[in-house]
Parts: sequence; C-alpha cells; structure tokens
Amino acid sequence: MADLNETASTLHQYGELVGVAAFALSGALTAVRRNMDIVGILLLAVATALGGGIIRDLIIGNTPPNAFTDMSYAVAALLAGGVICVWHPPSNVMTKWSLEVTDAIGLGLFAVTGTVIAHEWGMSAPGAALLGMTTCIGGGVIRDVLSGQIPTVLRPGQNLYAIPALTAAAVVAVLLRYTEYQPWMGLACAALAIAIRIGSLVFGWHGPQPWYMRTLDAPER
Amino acid sequence: MADLNETASTLHQYGELVGVAAFALSGALTAVRRNMDIVGILLLAVATALGGGIIRDLIIGNTPPNAFTDMSYAVAALLAGGVICVWHPPSNVMTKWSLEVTDAIGLGLFAVTGTVIAHEWGMSAPGAALLGMTTCIGGGVIRDVLSGQIPTVLRPGQNLYAIPALTAAAVVAVLLRYTEYQPWMGLACAALAIAIRIGSLVFGWHGPQPWYMRTLDAPER
Amino acid sequence: MADLNETASTLHQYGELVGVAAFALSGALTAVRRNMDIVGILLLAVATALGGGIIRDLIIGNTPPNAFTDMSYAVAALLAGGVICVWHPPSNVMTKWSLEVTDAIGLGLFAVTGTVIAHEWGMSAPGAALLGMTTCIGGGVIRDVLSGQIPTVLRPGQNLYAIPALTAAAVVAVLLRYTEYQPWMGLACAALAIAIRIGSLVFGWHGPQPWYMRTLDAPER
Repeated sequence: MADLNETASTLHQYGELVGVAAFALSGALTAVRRNMDIVGILLLAVATALGGGIIRDLIIGNTPPNAFTDMSYAVAALLAGGVICVWHPPSNVMTKWSLEVTDAIGLGLFAVTGTVIAHEWGMSAPGAALLGMTTCIGGGVIRDVLSGQIPTVLRPGQNLYAIPALTAAAVVAVLLRYTEYQPWMGLACAALAIAIRIGSLVFGWHGPQPWYMRTLDAPER
Repeated sequence: MADLNETASTLHQYGELVGVAAFALSGALTAVRRNMDIVGILLLAVATALGGGIIRDLIIGNTPPNAFTDMSYAVAALLAGGVICVWHPPSNVMTKWSLEVTDAIGLGLFAVTGTVIAHEWGMSAPGAALLGMTTCIGGGVIRDVLSGQIPTVLRPGQNLYAIPALTAAAVVAVLLRYTEYQPWMGLACAALAIAIRIGSLVFGWHGPQPWYMRTLDAPER
Repeated sequence: MADLNETASTLHQYGELVGVAAFALSGALTAVRRNMDIVGILLLAVATALGGGIIRDLIIGNTPPNAFTDMSYAVAALLAGGVICVWHPPSNVMTKWSLEVTDAIGLGLFAVTGTVIAHEWGMSAPGAALLGMTTCIGGGVIRDVLSGQIPTVLRPGQNLYAIPALTAAAVVAVLLRYTEYQPWMGLACAALAIAIRIGSLVFGWHGPQPWYMRTLDAPER
C-alpha cells in the first residue's frame, strides 16, 4: 500500500507537468489556427497552461501563485509551446487522439489537484469541488476568451468537459471529508474523469439542450 | 428604529439572495439565446451570479471568497439556472418587466453590499464606492465576455447601469464616512439605484456620446 | 549619484502617472472607435489604465490593490478619459506618434515598476520578470477583451509589444538579484523597452510566424 501511494504521488507529480504541457499544446495550436506569430503562440500557451492554477491560487489566497514561484510549470509550458513554433502535428487520427488523451490527462489531474489543494487550505467539501472544477476549466476558458471565441466548455454540441471535471472533484471532496484520503484514491478519481472524457469523445456524449429549444429556431451548431 | 433596522437587515439578507438569483436568471437566459446546452446554462448562470462577489472578495483580500464558503449563493444560482433548463419565460411585456425589476433589485443591493463590505475591510470612501460599482457590474461583464459579446455596460444606446450602481455606492460610502451608518440607509440607497435604473428603462435614459461623434460616420447601434 | 537617483525616483513617479494616463487614452480611443457613450469611454479608460496594476497586486497578494487605495491613479485615468469625451485627437501623423510614444513610456515604466514591486514582495527573479511583463500587457488585454477584439499583443503582424516589456523586466530582475539596484538603472531599463518598442514601430519589426505556416492557407491579417 505504501508502495502504491508512493507510485501514485510520483505519477501525480509528473502527471501534473504532463497536464500543463497538454494545456500549453492546446493553447499553442489554437494560436496557430489564428495565424498568430511565435510571440502570440508562446503567450497563449503559457496563459492556457498556467491560468487555471493561478485562478485557483488567487481564490484560496495562496499568493504569489505557484506558477510564479515554481518555474517548472512555466518551463514545461514554454517547451510545449516552443515545439509548436517549429513543428505542426500532422492532422491525422492518431495525432488528434494523442492530443485529446493528453488533454484528458490534464483535465483529470487538475480536477483532483485543485480539490486537494482547496481542502488543504481549509475549504469545505462543496467549495473544494467547485474550485477543483474551476481549476480544470479555467485555462481553457482563458485560451478561448483570448482567442476571441465563446469558451468550448459552454458551446453547444461539444463533448462533456465540465461534467467529468466536476464528477472527479466531487468524489475527491467526499473522500477527503469522510475517509482517510490516500494518493491512490486521487489517481483513481483522475482516471474516472479521464474515462468519462474519453468516453464522451468516443460515443459523442454531450449535454442535452432544454426541451423547449426544439420549438425555437433551429440552433446554430 | 431598532425594528426598522432589523427589518432592513433581514430584507437585505434575503434581497441579496434575490439579487444572486436575478443575475443567475440573466446568465441562464443569455445561455439559452446562444443555444447552449444545460451544462452551459448552469455554468453561465453560476458565473454571472457569483462573479461580481468573487471579484470583490479577491480585491479586498477576503480569501477564499464568500461564494466558495457559503453555499447558499451557489445553490440560489443553480436553482435559478435550473428553472431556465426546464421552463422558458414567455416573451411578453410582463415577463420582461419582472426580469428587469429583479435584476434592478440585484443591482441596488450588490452596490450597497459591495460598498459596505469594502468599508468594513478598511477601504477609503472613494475606493469603497469604486469597489461597490465593480461588484455590481462584474457579474454582467463576465456573462457578456463568456458569451462572446461586448459587455452591456459598455455598449452604446443602452440604458443606464453603471450610473445607478455608482450613485448608490457613492452615497453609501459618504454615509459610512460621515454618519452613524444604519441598515435602513443602505436600503434607501439600494432603492435609489433601483429607481434610477427603472426610470432609465421607462424613460429611455442613456449616456450621451461625445458631441464630435455626430460628425463621424453614423454609429452602428 | 544621489542626485541622479533622486531625479530618477521623481521621474519614475511622475512617469507612472503619465503611463496610467497613456493607457487610459488608449482605452478611451478604443471606446470611441466602438461608438461607446461617455459612460463606456470612462469605464474602458479606467479599466485599461488600472487593470494591469490590479492584476499585479492580486498576484503578489497586495490587497486591496494600490488602484483602490491611492486615488491618484483613478483620477489620472478619469482625467485622460474625460479629455477624450470632449475632444478627439486629429488623425494626423504627429498625433499618432504622440500617442505611440506616450504608450511606449507607459510600457517601459510599468514593466520596471511591476518587476521591482514583485521583487520587493519576495518573488524570485524569473517570477518577478514574468509578473513585470504581465503588469505591462494586462491593461491592454483587458481593453481588447472588453471591446470584443483579440488582444493586440497576440494578433499576428503587430509590432513588438510583449518582447520589449519582457526584455526590460528580465534585465531589471537580473540587476535586482546580482547588483545593488539603483533607481537610475530602472530608468535605463525603461528607456531600453521604450527604444525597442519605438524601433519596432519605425522599422516594422514583428515576431516571425512558424515556418510551416507559409505552406498553410494564406493567413488572414
């Protein structure tokens, strides 16, 4: 069990850097689609990758935020953004899925980390879950607002994103409150979020629209 | 007088939840107009309803913000958003006015609460008034930026919104500084903001444009 | 030397108000281009001028931010915005350059001030440089997001903005770390940023796009 927890902690730590890099890639690729130059690519990569964690730290009162004190996050984001400055992933199915899976890993780990940190700073279970979800979707919202789009997480017809984040965050918050929380539990919750997210992409799950919408004008998708 | 103050405090407390619900409704209705699904409707309702207060708390340094520690705000926002997920208000004059009046109540109460809280945290009168106005318009700005629009409060040809908020906030700030502030005064200031806002809607008041604009291209309204 | 430092401090202090006014002018002029009324002009002027400093103060944990405690910033921003409410600068070359030079002064001074303040609050050199740049570009990003545009600092084909900011911030951070920092050094770094920015406008420098973009669809500029 001790071994399992140690492995989980290590996985978590490296996983978080993977998550930062994944969010940085999504920011950089959005910048490329908008024809930005390399300054824009690197700025959007860093803002997307660090934004969620900075919002989380401001809300719990952890100032200056980790992103400004531990440079490994900024370096991971810059490296990932730098890759996109010199190389564009070929647009085939395998690349698309590598990116989606990397992003889902970031989603799952950020939801868990955000909730755990919120709990450690003394927040109640519902508050911690809410903040875990915010950490998770914050970076993507910043990316989309800065590139002039309605945030993906709000757009209709998109696959589930906030739901897996909130599910994992809520389960972690309950576990923290009612059990002796162990790192492997967090990893299991992250895996749950990743599974829901990937399932949503594979099977095309998305949130329902209100029933009365069908009677309005045809929605623009 | 004591009775009056007690009534005022109670009114204020319930009024604030009414304000949160009103802002949540406006967020949810904006989401419906953008054809969002129920996840988007609930997220935009919560972000609109809690955004102004979260900005206020971050600025005064009250971390974590009330919205993350007192769940009654989030619950009120989710309930109001949930109503819009299953029922769309008929678009007739009475509904429009119910919504406008509810929103004006939120406007007035948030301006007063924001200013009082800023004062309690030791801010000077002008700073407190500025923050009261920010609290008030913050939620709406978040709603509009997230749904891809220029914030209503900035758009030309709109009825007064920032002005009633700033008026009430400024009067409260002066009263807090120079009198023994009583809750009924706050309620009176909120009523003042509500009256200016409703008057602006009834009589079509809006801010003037600079005189030289008439000589430029016809403004796009 | 003492005289030089005193002059530098004074220049810095007045320079910062000049910078605030310059950013307020850019906010107000953006509002005019969007046909906003005078409420919108003043709000956008204040948000642009104070936004960067507020973000900086929230990140270092200096709450409430200076902009809410020292009213000279808000007054400078309102005065600059008020000028644009009654007078529109003629669109000739001299006016354009006055505005660009004023904005560049703001850019240089904000980068230096942001970094110095971050250092005083105990941040490491890379964190302080990152925050200095953020302070600098924050106001402009807020201005562009609120007026419904992709931030100038990210748009392709724009002259250098983040680069001079980051250069000055990085040099200041290194000087703070390895030398006995003197105010005149900060002024020299601000001058460096101003020179790079003006040079970028005169000679049309801008960041390169990734080499592979030439092979994609023609970029929309």
